Amino acid sequence: MAGKKMAIIATKGTLDWAYPPFILGSTAAALGYEVQIFFTFYGLQLLKKKMGLKVSPLGNPGMPMPMGMDKWFPVLFTAIPGMEAMMTAMMKSKMKSKGIATIEELRGLCQEADVKMIACQMTVDLFDFSPQDLIDGIEFGGASTFMAFAGESDICLFM
Amino acid sequence: MAGKKMAIIATKGTLDWAYPPFILGSTAAALGYEVQIFFTFYGLQLLKKKMGLKVSPLGNPGMPMPMGMDKWFPVLFTAIPGMEAMMTAMMKSKMKSKGIATIEELRGLCQEADVKMIACQMTVDLFDFSPQDLIDGIEFGGASTFMAFAGESDICLFM
Amino acid sequence: MAGKKMAIIATKGTLDWAYPPFILGSTAAALGYEVQIFFTFYGLQLLKKKMGLKVSPLGNPGMPMPMGMDKWFPVLFTAIPGMEAMMTAMMKSKMKSKGIATIEELRGLCQEADVKMIACQMTVDLFDFSPQDLIDGIEFGGASTFMAFAGESDICLFM
Repeated sequence: MAGKKMAIIATKGTLDWAYPPFILGSTAAALGYEVQIFFTFYGLQLLKKKMGLKVSPLGNPGMPMPMGMDKWFPVLFTAIPGMEAMMTAMMKSKMKSKGIATIEELRGLCQEADVKMIACQMTVDLFDFSPQDLIDGIEFGGASTFMAFAGESDICLFM
Repeated sequence: MAGKKMAIIATKGTLDWAYPPFILGSTAAALGYEVQIFFTFYGLQLLKKKMGLKVSPLGNPGMPMPMGMDKWFPVLFTAIPGMEAMMTAMMKSKMKSKGIATIEELRGLCQEADVKMIACQMTVDLFDFSPQDLIDGIEFGGASTFMAFAGESDICLFM
Repeated sequence: MAGKKMAIIATKGTLDWAYPPFILGSTAAALGYEVQIFFTFYGLQLLKKKMGLKVSPLGNPGMPMPMGMDKWFPVLFTAIPGMEAMMTAMMKSKMKSKGIATIEELRGLCQEADVKMIACQMTVDLFDFSPQDLIDGIEFGGASTFMAFAGESDICLFM
């Protein structure tokens, strides 16, 4: 598939939604695609050196609850302090037990495969991110620059 | 539109977000598109024989509340047990009164129109889904297999 | 980039997710793209004359909290009445202090650049929206009409 291009706009900053851009990005790169990911809005969290991503069951009744937790904890209790940390720990443990790579590993795979990662400059300014908190080897740019690549891509996804 | 292809990645597992992949998938198929939907993450819920999908108003202030409910129930109370079930029942009733097809019906339309549905094998393993809990006639595969179709598609959407 | 086309399906109705369709739509139009945005589901809120959009931290641990708010307010307290209004006011104030255009301004830019905005007729019926509550100059249509444009587009995004 020489010459194929994939453009991804990564907008979410939670543990669960961190997987799609890095899984699809590294998969496409492995298939020979030229890949660029534009990290904007909450997605900028995925470029931090120390990510500290969390997952929340709040407002997502589509999340399968391990061990029948939904039977024991009604919606209200998913809001108690500590619940988010507990769900995050459980998801990480589940991923590990199933042999699924961590977000850090998947991001590393993307870097090794020369996936171009671009931090949205407007979001960096908006959320007062410090460039030194972000990983090395990324670029900073705007939507219009990214559009040049996206307009020539074979697959363009907003995640 | 002979020869046109649409690729959908369905990642959400709630009642409201179950509509877009099945509505757009069946619409495209009716227009002559070849359609493939890749169900991954929470989207795998949409392939269950018994879906039991729910909708939550939590964290979604964009949801129009029927009968001025937002005036009567401030945010906190959308978290009380039973609220999710109530909202789900109200949305289903609303859809029915407006003559909109159910998710089961729309999924059936997709099946009749030969929309190819693929369950993400990694997610099946991760969430410990039993293949016999899923509807018949689907395939199991990975992201790289799906990419072959997506890379040739005219429309590729991540939902 | 004469002749390039961008198709956007806008499905979210919150303050934060109102930015992507209008920013990318106006950016693409400025680059010479022909742009169409199909507003459906909660996205229909973005076509209201009086938008009154809100943002919620609930269920989104990826949202950077200003002033270390997440240290002071654990998850439960993000659900107290008034929190949503407070977060909304803070985000608007933040955007303003950074010189970022308001949603109203970005929507105006799209209109001036002849971005075609289409309200999903099914959603208008479903949520009982009054056409007179929506801005002037828009069209009403269905998914199949929009598909004709989307199928010819260079970039098609589901937001």
